[in-house]
Amino acid sequence: MTYFQQAPELDVSGWLNTTTPITLEQLKGQVVLIHAFQMLCPACVSHGLPQTQAVHKLFENEKVSVIGLHTVFEHHQVMNKAALEAFVSEYRLSFPIAIDTASTQGVIPKTMHSYMLRGTPSIIVIDKQGNIRLNHFGRISDLELGNLIGQLLTEPENISSATSQDLPSKSKYPQKSQPNCDAEGCAI
Amino acid sequence: MTYFQQAPELDVSGWLNTTTPITLEQLKGQVVLIHAFQMLCPACVSHGLPQTQAVHKLFENEKVSVIGLHTVFEHHQVMNKAALEAFVSEYRLSFPIAIDTASTQGVIPKTMHSYMLRGTPSIIVIDKQGNIRLNHFGRISDLELGNLIGQLLTEPENISSATSQDLPSKSKYPQKSQPNCDAEGCAI
Amino acid sequence: MTYFQQAPELDVSGWLNTTTPITLEQLKGQVVLIHAFQMLCPACVSHGLPQTQAVHKLFENEKVSVIGLHTVFEHHQVMNKAALEAFVSEYRLSFPIAIDTASTQGVIPKTMHSYMLRGTPSIIVIDKQGNIRLNHFGRISDLELGNLIGQLLTEPENISSATSQDLPSKSKYPQKSQPNCDAEGCAI
Amino acid sequence: MTYFQQAPELDVSGWLNTTTPITLEQLKGQVVLIHAFQMLCPACVSHGLPQTQAVHKLFENEKVSVIGLHTVFEHHQVMNKAALEAFVSEYRLSFPIAIDTASTQGVIPKTMHSYMLRGTPSIIVIDKQGNIRLNHFGRISDLELGNLIGQLLTEPENISSATSQDLPSKSKYPQKSQPNCDAEGCAI
Repeated sequence: MTYFQQAPELDVSGWLNTTTPITLEQLKGQVVLIHAFQMLCPACVSHGLPQTQAVHKLFENEKVSVIGLHTVFEHHQVMNKAALEAFVSEYRLSFPIAIDTASTQGVIPKTMHSYMLRGTPSIIVIDKQGNIRLNHFGRISDLELGNLIGQLLTEPENISSATSQDLPSKSKYPQKSQPNCDAEGCAI
Repeated sequence: MTYFQQAPELDVSGWLNTTTPITLEQLKGQVVLIHAFQMLCPACVSHGLPQTQAVHKLFENEKVSVIGLHTVFEHHQVMNKAALEAFVSEYRLSFPIAIDTASTQGVIPKTMHSYMLRGTPSIIVIDKQGNIRLNHFGRISDLELGNLIGQLLTEPENISSATSQDLPSKSKYPQKSQPNCDAEGCAI
Repeated sequence: MTYFQQAPELDVSGWLNTTTPITLEQLKGQVVLIHAFQMLCPACVSHGLPQTQAVHKLFENEKVSVIGLHTVFEHHQVMNKAALEAFVSEYRLSFPIAIDTASTQGVIPKTMHSYMLRGTPSIIVIDKQGNIRLNHFGRISDLELGNLIGQLLTEPENISSATSQDLPSKSKYPQKSQPNCDAEGCAI
Repeated sequence: MTYFQQAPELDVSGWLNTTTPITLEQLKGQVVLIHAFQMLCPACVSHGLPQTQAVHKLFENEKVSVIGLHTVFEHHQVMNKAALEAFVSEYRLSFPIAIDTASTQGVIPKTMHSYMLRGTPSIIVIDKQGNIRLNHFGRISDLELGNLIGQLLTEPENISSATSQDLPSKSKYPQKSQPNCDAEGCAI
């Protein structure tokens, strides 16, 4: 039997595109896609955010919730909430976007730290029981992401432990060591 | 309960990229993707065949079988087997490709007729029990296709009737009336 | 004989990617491409800036000067100099970038006003004598832009008036009325 | 002073998209783009032919003539005239296309041999005096191609020798040794 890690709750300082804060606890029973990005990360803008928007649109009538997570770990001064609001408006993003709570002790914000993200873009997929089923830094193809969401959608909502021997228990994607931003993303 | 149509067996006159003919009967227990194309159909070349090759590669170690089906309904003289072999070699397609049996009574080949395909590219997805779960003319996004394959992969192999109320029992894609080939495909 | 408008001098409050300010007067004898953009304009990020970077690289050993012009006419607070510096660093832009001087009387900055730009992205091409030969709002294909630069490169540096009956004296591109930002650009 | 090679006359066995054969002699005074391709060459289909069609459209009212040249050096049996006609119809190519005359002594057709082409796609650009100004195997960017055409368009029609010290006298593109077809093209 495979055991998955329970997704830690989001620790966020604000929300865009939603009037009420969202908790992962509320979303139990749904597949959740969290896209961690920075507004000045080129690969997030060219690949990750359009993909996330497409997931949001394709599954809007299904048990899939999409959340953007602004995990600023560089240029904190200029990637503030007002800047993010302008960015989200200009890029016409329509899914709820959370602002990761800044740390008082370092550059890495709190949710980014608790999920041990390696940079942006990162994609986290959580199953209906609240388990982390994918935690991936860099790009992932639409075919792979669609496949994973499709598999998780068919799982039952209310069992306490999924066995799912056919499903990836962790990311199988190679995780490169990258200095700063390149075409693949911005690494810590 | 939703009843799906059983996929009719392929009626083909030859194969490429496989030394032995393939039957759908043999593939029971697997999800099967059939990509119906013509080698001179622009949308097949730019979109359908690269997508099919990507599915073939992504799922090569999983219970997914990918088959190309050369359904020639125009320019029969020049889209013959020798031409197809050259095309498949130059485009480096590696999945098995069947040649749909020409009809003695009209331009539409036999498998294309039995599946009531409307043109090329068409994508047929068959579940583990041999039921048609998608029969789509034109383009489909990688996200949608991945999602469908992912859902079907989680279904059991050996039940006689799937209920699957969440799954599309037929294509929900708008099917346009198209004269000949355009960016979307070649219609009958 | 065709008369072209002399390009007004830039009125800018700062520069990135150059240690000394640049004037159009200095660039007489060269073809000059000015790309007016905003860092939060989607069409600038996806199309205009990569095109400008490609022009900068292709013609680096020829008599072509490329200048970016940050013409902020919305979200002034968050598209400040520090934000632009972070943006330019992350996107690895290497051509000189000027910051258009903010107006004390309205949202439109001064150089944007003197060139009567209609929004971002805009492309201005100036010939060797300092005449405006293209002032275009929205996208322009690489083929068209390359053709124009190629034609202007062959003109002599030191005649006082070009006749150039074959060249466009003004933009022939349709200029759409656009509310805010869309895939084509951000209009005033 | 730079001397350019005079472009040899085309040796072709047939034409598509024109009722009368075309000679380079007739086209003196115009810039001529010849795109050498094979209908089953992937890089020709994805890059070279769309680029050639774009040049044909952009310059249709200017002194630029665009010619396709079907230079078959492999799979001769299946890339015959009837197949090419079907291909040209399906891909909606509208510029005149010549069929390079097959050699009786080898696989390389006659015009391909006289121009010493290295494979497909190849682009040949001829100036108004009939000189070869570019003979390039593989891809070339729209920006580069537009620039070259733009420069050649400004040259006079009736001088006997161009000096053009700013123009490339031969291709500056690296010419790779390539076995058969890949993403860049099909080499001899």
